[in-house]
Amino acid sequence: MEWINGGVCAPKGFKAGGIHCGIRPNQTKKDLALIVSDTPCTAAGMFTKNAVKAAPVLVDMECIKSGTAKAVFANSGIANACAPHDMENALAMQKLAADALGVPAGQVLVGSTGVIGKDLDIAKIEAGLPLLMDTLSADEAGSDSAASAIMTTDTVKKEYAVSFEVNGKEAVIGGISKGSGMIHPNMGTMLCYLTTDCAVSPAILKKALKEVCDVTFNRISVDGDTSTNDSLIILANGQAGNACIEAEDEDYAVFAAALKEICTALARKMAKDGEGAKHLITCRVASCESEAKAETLAKSVIGSSLTKAAIFGEDANWGRVLCALGYSGEAFDPLQTDIAFASEAGRIDVCAKGKGLAFDEDLAKKILHEDEVIIDIEMNEGEASAVCWGCDLTYDYVKINGDYRT
Amino acid sequence: MEWINGGVCAPKGFKAGGIHCGIRPNQTKKDLALIVSDTPCTAAGMFTKNAVKAAPVLVDMECIKSGTAKAVFANSGIANACAPHDMENALAMQKLAADALGVPAGQVLVGSTGVIGKDLDIAKIEAGLPLLMDTLSADEAGSDSAASAIMTTDTVKKEYAVSFEVNGKEAVIGGISKGSGMIHPNMGTMLCYLTTDCAVSPAILKKALKEVCDVTFNRISVDGDTSTNDSLIILANGQAGNACIEAEDEDYAVFAAALKEICTALARKMAKDGEGAKHLITCRVASCESEAKAETLAKSVIGSSLTKAAIFGEDANWGRVLCALGYSGEAFDPLQTDIAFASEAGRIDVCAKGKGLAFDEDLAKKILHEDEVIIDIEMNEGEASAVCWGCDLTYDYVKINGDYRT
Repeated sequence: MEWINGGVCAPKGFKAGGIHCGIRPNQTKKDLALIVSDTPCTAAGMFTKNAVKAAPVLVDMECIKSGTAKAVFANSGIANACAPHDMENALAMQKLAADALGVPAGQVLVGSTGVIGKDLDIAKIEAGLPLLMDTLSADEAGSDSAASAIMTTDTVKKEYAVSFEVNGKEAVIGGISKGSGMIHPNMGTMLCYLTTDCAVSPAILKKALKEVCDVTFNRISVDGDTSTNDSLIILANGQAGNACIEAEDEDYAVFAAALKEICTALARKMAKDGEGAKHLITCRVASCESEAKAETLAKSVIGSSLTKAAIFGEDANWGRVLCALGYSGEAFDPLQTDIAFASEAGRIDVCAKGKGLAFDEDLAKKILHEDEVIIDIEMNEGEASAVCWGCDLTYDYVKINGDYRT
Repeated sequence: MEWINGGVCAPKGFKAGGIHCGIRPNQTKKDLALIVSDTPCTAAGMFTKNAVKAAPVLVDMECIKSGTAKAVFANSGIANACAPHDMENALAMQKLAADALGVPAGQVLVGSTGVIGKDLDIAKIEAGLPLLMDTLSADEAGSDSAASAIMTTDTVKKEYAVSFEVNGKEAVIGGISKGSGMIHPNMGTMLCYLTTDCAVSPAILKKALKEVCDVTFNRISVDGDTSTNDSLIILANGQAGNACIEAEDEDYAVFAAALKEICTALARKMAKDGEGAKHLITCRVASCESEAKAETLAKSVIGSSLTKAAIFGEDANWGRVLCALGYSGEAFDPLQTDIAFASEAGRIDVCAKGKGLAFDEDLAKKILHEDEVIIDIEMNEGEASAVCWGCDLTYDYVKINGDYRT
């Protein structure tokens, strides 16, 4: 397995592009993205579990039932959720792209991200589409533009590609995603679009996507707010020429492993670029009774406002970590719990068997000053473990969200 | 029913006091409180549901089983949780007060609040106790001192008393409490000590306390973090001379109503004085299928970081409110939901049947500029309702918690 450049354009047969069409007021911000395969694809998707679902999510949930799709058309700036004409506009958006591409409407998946409650100006999308079609590119620049065009409060693009060998053939998975607020584990994710030239049947593609989503995107949190628009979509066009993966065999294992790598990288980057974040927080809960329990415990820690604020302050306040484990809803013996902080600057044990240890405050400050801080927890009760990712709570999170809408 | 002065000293036969004994480094901050009844009391308590419980919580949970107690002895500055000698110190603290008061150890309930993981300096408590005994007072000043001595990051004292007539006798309930971080609905509360001269049997006292706690303290949240130390305790010495309340009769209804009034006032004051808070947020969910569902929905809204940040920014971002309802875990039809913002400055409808309404942004700013902001939600599906209270998320919350420990 090897990291390569090119994002969603790295697999054979995919083009992408992104432009500014006027949905976002700032003319330097791209706001309309298109990803399209030259040939038919199998497709799978995971969507928000929020009871309030944006119109494009409802459209995609219906279309994805066919197990096929050829393109993804998405905008930023407006979420197209809870707006007077949300469904009408989602369907119009889908039809515009389908007509331009000469495919049935159901072959285009749509996505939106931005402010809830306002109508999309579909005329701007219609006016921008010809330019977008012209800029479609199979090069890295195409994926870059598409990745830019789905960003909202994100400060960096999230774009990866990985190549791997499956049954003697070279295959590639590429992906782009965006954070960075309303990000919380009970979800599909925010917007994430994956492409691959690996040949995979619809059922197996769906299975792999769910399995991987559960241990990657569903293990990050920025702010505990599960969005109305979360969508994770993969298109697989089969141009790698491998024998189509139709069962959970060795090829499946290779494909799923590559998919997990890229989704982990995208998920970590989303957590690290959480609104206002200064630190990526990686919480690892080990020697636990079960993986599900370890995940619940780790999620409780990365979701704790007090722990997040302590990491922002670079303060080794482990009491808040233990407290967050305690209110997770899981039963455990606090008198068996060990906690350490770690980073590239070192590692320090701060709590053993539920009791505070004397520790070097200077070393602790150094450890917590690094970009990525690891909270390492041993439950000392079993063999299972889980890792979740979050970010610190900062002044900038409050600033960004105190006046996002206007 | 009438609001009166005097806090926990307002009921007949209670004395209280608070001093600085040196647990908190700042000499102007009181850190040791004692509340004591002249005569034996029935007692009831509610405690944190956090799996990690502070030593004083464990001590009180055991003692309260007798249904009687005569005093509460509490410190601020150190939580006496997860520290090497936590239980030893909680028992020592209990014995010191019991010896000074000449009562069995089990008659003294203990409480601590502050930093987790550090040992209490019991010598300072022992040295301070004689002065504390000297300052005990049955006047308002006694309750004031005790209320001050349990504060941590609180900016205002929380102290109330209410008088009412029960079966021809005048009775009083008084109370003090403290917030203001690690406050979240699944709890007893932080520290709250109530006194009453009303005669109530242990079983009925417990029943009333639980019923009232469920609709007051358990309906507030500052930050989603359920503390290790939450304790709500009531002592009832019977000096009002009423016939002891032993069943759910008319007298019980009067007592429970008075208890609900004072607990509501204390809970609202705790939410309003949440760490860094500028606004009290009152979320009312009405025309709902059931009260439990209305409570879950309202709690989801007051717990949403994005909603809290929007209220700080005085931004009528109702999409975040609808989004928070959506991820509460409750099923409902978003296309039936109405949302309005209200305050002393007026009321404005922002969402009807799940769709955004055009509204006057200037009026919205005025409404959200008030100290208390009401988020008024109609589910349009039933008859039940619930009210929960929270506060906004501010720069100061991050500042206070970025470096609380040092």
